[in-house]
Amino acid sequence: MSHLRPDGDAIGSQLALGLALEEMGKTVYYWNVDGLPESMEFLPYSDKISLPPEVAPLIDVAVALDTATKVRLGEANIAACAQAKLWVNIDHHMSNPRYGDMNYVDATSPATGQIIYEIIQALQMPLPDGTRDAIYVAVSTDTGSFQYDSTTAKTYRMAADLMDRGLKIGQINAKTYDNHPYRRVELLRTLLNTLELSAAGKVASWEMLDATRVSLQLQPDDSEGLIDMIRAIRGVQVAVFFEELPDGKIRVSMRSKDRSVDVCKIATIFGGGGHYLAAGIRMAGPIAAAKELVLAEIAKAI
Amino acid sequence: MSHLRPDGDAIGSQLALGLALEEMGKTVYYWNVDGLPESMEFLPYSDKISLPPEVAPLIDVAVALDTATKVRLGEANIAACAQAKLWVNIDHHMSNPRYGDMNYVDATSPATGQIIYEIIQALQMPLPDGTRDAIYVAVSTDTGSFQYDSTTAKTYRMAADLMDRGLKIGQINAKTYDNHPYRRVELLRTLLNTLELSAAGKVASWEMLDATRVSLQLQPDDSEGLIDMIRAIRGVQVAVFFEELPDGKIRVSMRSKDRSVDVCKIATIFGGGGHYLAAGIRMAGPIAAAKELVLAEIAKAI
Repeated sequence: MSHLRPDGDAIGSQLALGLALEEMGKTVYYWNVDGLPESMEFLPYSDKISLPPEVAPLIDVAVALDTATKVRLGEANIAACAQAKLWVNIDHHMSNPRYGDMNYVDATSPATGQIIYEIIQALQMPLPDGTRDAIYVAVSTDTGSFQYDSTTAKTYRMAADLMDRGLKIGQINAKTYDNHPYRRVELLRTLLNTLELSAAGKVASWEMLDATRVSLQLQPDDSEGLIDMIRAIRGVQVAVFFEELPDGKIRVSMRSKDRSVDVCKIATIFGGGGHYLAAGIRMAGPIAAAKELVLAEIAKAI
Repeated sequence: MSHLRPDGDAIGSQLALGLALEEMGKTVYYWNVDGLPESMEFLPYSDKISLPPEVAPLIDVAVALDTATKVRLGEANIAACAQAKLWVNIDHHMSNPRYGDMNYVDATSPATGQIIYEIIQALQMPLPDGTRDAIYVAVSTDTGSFQYDSTTAKTYRMAADLMDRGLKIGQINAKTYDNHPYRRVELLRTLLNTLELSAAGKVASWEMLDATRVSLQLQPDDSEGLIDMIRAIRGVQVAVFFEELPDGKIRVSMRSKDRSVDVCKIATIFGGGGHYLAAGIRMAGPIAAAKELVLAEIAKAI
């Protein structure tokens, strides 16, 4: 299992470990309460990912991957594993409270996929091609293609080893990164047309009305990562995305370029949370009012 | 020296080799006929890059880096090195005709920066911090952050070694990729507002009038890589950028997603050239006429 609203590291870690265990003759189920996101359908054997069944088979071992708190597995997963004899918790989130019977939490690892690779090496488990591809995608997506500060020398050596094992580097990256639905580009255009700089160019913000989600038929992961594009503007310290939700509330996502502005502190003022580089708020609308309040606090912090 | 309109691999290779040679006690000049692009100003010691002087100092060895043909060094570079006793030509472009007295052309290398790394290792030359950073940026920018098919297992092992040597991975990538001038984002917005899909969604094209260049005060490298964003749309096989030049001619840049459409063949029809994945044309305007002609040929090829 992996966390709800799964990303590349969540799905990739499930496939990586599961396919290796199947190769060893184990029976493996791959459950996620939100199922397989469209963006990960290209991964070999990804159709093994399913919703947890209402009537679960007998489970010996429940494995939670890349999931910082048990509750983020989703209720249906927890219910389906109620009879499991052993809970294993493998993750790279610092805040993970070690909710398993066995816990392997390594916050120095940039991705859970890299931990799976290390476990496979250490236990001399098989590393079939599906595992190879899944590990690469898990780690590449969680490091912004080997760019983030969390990337380690081990990460690059692992990628080299995966290539030695036959990874098709151009092909897998094209499938991971060059395969966006058109509606994502339409969303980017809509957002750019609302782009505003404030605080003397140190804050970039854009917004989306709920009507846009409806008219472009957006899916939850369509906006994934777009905010990085305005955080990347020279001189910008904080990027903010104001998103009107179906219930009229406003979701605010903030990204800071470095430690100079702690966006978590700003989120806390409005009852939100996160960490210093990435934080979020859910607050009352309308969007114009939310913008005014949040941008004022950010300007103050700067 | 490196090629005109220099990119990360051109400037990075110059600094990487030059700083290593300086560490060995050599006197090194760093010349480029277009000077240092703004996007590379963050590289340590990049202020060493200058235009070739009109009255050149005495040169023992002229080294051309990442430059497929001698003419792409620019006339001023060639003139400034007229007295050189030896020409060295280090490059990774397949088409390089070996115009030096000594040639090291390795088309299996994804970047000239990686060749410099291998030369430094083989000759046990020093690898100062400036060289380390320059090699990383050269290779990262020429592989789309370790994604392109040209990336090799050696590329990843090299990156691991550079990290062992103290490379600040998060910092250098932030400076390379998260530091765009605002006008680049304005350009992206303008382009997206002209985006059109044709040939049943297999062709994505956008256009820019010369007036946009003027009003946004664009520099030559501001549009670098933007076309990849529409090539990445699911279902798109060819992305096309129509750009009106100051003289009224139209520059057409084409990118193909894979071998299924050879954009070089299409460019050839209009007197242009390139290779199967990336090709260009310079043709008569107005932009609407150029679009009609080129898009018709692409549709035919598809």
